[in-house]
Amino acid sequence: MQGTQETTSPSAAYTRTDRTVPTRSPDRAAYDKELVHAILDQAYVCHLGFVRDGAPVVLPTLYGRVGERLYVHGSTGSRPLRMTGQAGPGLPVCLTVTHVDALVLARSAFHHSINYRSVVVHGVAHDVTDPEEKRLALDALVDHVVPGRSRDSRPANRKELAATAVIRLDLDEVSAKFRTGGVDDEPEDLALPHWAGVVPLRKGYGTPVPAADLAPGTELPDYLTMP
Amino acid sequence: MQGTQETTSPSAAYTRTDRTVPTRSPDRAAYDKELVHAILDQAYVCHLGFVRDGAPVVLPTLYGRVGERLYVHGSTGSRPLRMTGQAGPGLPVCLTVTHVDALVLARSAFHHSINYRSVVVHGVAHDVTDPEEKRLALDALVDHVVPGRSRDSRPANRKELAATAVIRLDLDEVSAKFRTGGVDDEPEDLALPHWAGVVPLRKGYGTPVPAADLAPGTELPDYLTMP
Repeated sequence: MQGTQETTSPSAAYTRTDRTVPTRSPDRAAYDKELVHAILDQAYVCHLGFVRDGAPVVLPTLYGRVGERLYVHGSTGSRPLRMTGQAGPGLPVCLTVTHVDALVLARSAFHHSINYRSVVVHGVAHDVTDPEEKRLALDALVDHVVPGRSRDSRPANRKELAATAVIRLDLDEVSAKFRTGGVDDEPEDLALPHWAGVVPLRKGYGTPVPAADLAPGTELPDYLTMP
Repeated sequence: MQGTQETTSPSAAYTRTDRTVPTRSPDRAAYDKELVHAILDQAYVCHLGFVRDGAPVVLPTLYGRVGERLYVHGSTGSRPLRMTGQAGPGLPVCLTVTHVDALVLARSAFHHSINYRSVVVHGVAHDVTDPEEKRLALDALVDHVVPGRSRDSRPANRKELAATAVIRLDLDEVSAKFRTGGVDDEPEDLALPHWAGVVPLRKGYGTPVPAADLAPGTELPDYLTMP
C-alpha cells in the first residue's frame, strides 16, 4: 500500500474543526498530513459510514489515495454508490481507517487498552465521471492493495470501467488519533502480581498461494516477497 | 478474544431484514449465529457508526460480547456515549467488524479483491445502568482483548465504574459477509504473464514487552504465549 508522489510539505496540517477535535484525550489527536497519509496508506480497508433512511450504515471497503483525494469503488448497482448521485449534491460520509498495533495489558482491568492509529475523514463523496480520473483512481485502488501492482496486471477494459462506480472524498476535514507506549497503571497497583506490558501484533504476508492455472513459467514477483 | 459459554443451537440464524440483505453478491451474506459470533469474537476493534447533526460519524472502539449482546465502553464524557441518554430512546447505531484475511491478485486489475469476513449489526444502543450487567460487560471487554484476562487483573473499583459508561447493542438485525477462495479471472486472461494467486496475511502475537516496573518474579502468563 502506498501513496503517489508527495508534494505535501512536512509542516502541512489539516485545519481543525468542531468535529475533528475530540472531547476526550485531545493530546492523542493529530492533524499532520504526512502522518495521516501514512496511516491511510498502510491499511487495507476503510469503514465507510453514511446515513440511509435516517440511520447510520457502516460498510468495510477497499480504497485508494491520490494526493489529497480518497477513492472508493464498487458496482454501479451497490447502494452507497447509487446514493452519491450523478453530479448531484453528493453523499455525506465518514471514512475511518484503523490499525491495531498492540495490546496493552495493565494490572487493573480499567487501564487495559490497545495501541492503535486511526484516521477519520468527514466530507461529502461525489461520483467520479471524468474517464481519466476514474482510471487513475482504479490504479490507485489496485496499488493500495499491493504497491506497483497496477503496472503488472491487465487494465480495466471499457466494459469493466462501465460496470465500476468510483466515488471521491477529498481530504479536507481530517484527523488522526493514536495511542503508543506502555502501561499506565495506578501507583498503588504496581506491586500486584498480574503480568503487565505490551503485546505487539505481528503483521505481514504469509506464503503466497499461486493460482492452480497460472501460466507456466510465471515467477512470484519481488513485490510479494516483502515481509 | 472469546465469547461466553454458548447456548445457541447450531441452526440458529438471525432473521433477514431489508437492510441486512445486500443488493450485490447476496451469496456472500450469511446469518448463522455461530459464524457471526466467531467473526465478532476474533477481532479487536469494531467501527461504530452513528448520526450527529445529520451527518455520519464512524469511530473505532473496543467491544465485548455476552451471548446476544454487544457492549461498548468509554468515558462518561465521550460524545457517542453521552448521546445514548439516560434511559432515553437510545442511539441508532451500526456496528461493523472486519477481518482482512488475504489479498487476491488477479491477472486483471478489475478482479483484484481481498478475502475478508465482516459482520454488520444495526440497532439502537442503550446505556447500561444495572451495576451487575455493567460489571459483566466490563469483564467481557477485557476478555475480548485477551481471553481469561479479567480473572488475572484488578477489577474496576467504585470510582472507575462511575467514570466508565457502557452501552449495549443487542444482536438482532445482523448479517455476516465474506469472501473466501481463489482468483476469479476471465477465461481470456488466464494466459497473461501476470502472477495470480492469494497472499494470506499473517496474524498473531509478537514478543510481549513486560512493563519496566513489573513486580519481581511475575512470569509471562500462558495465555500470552499463544500464536
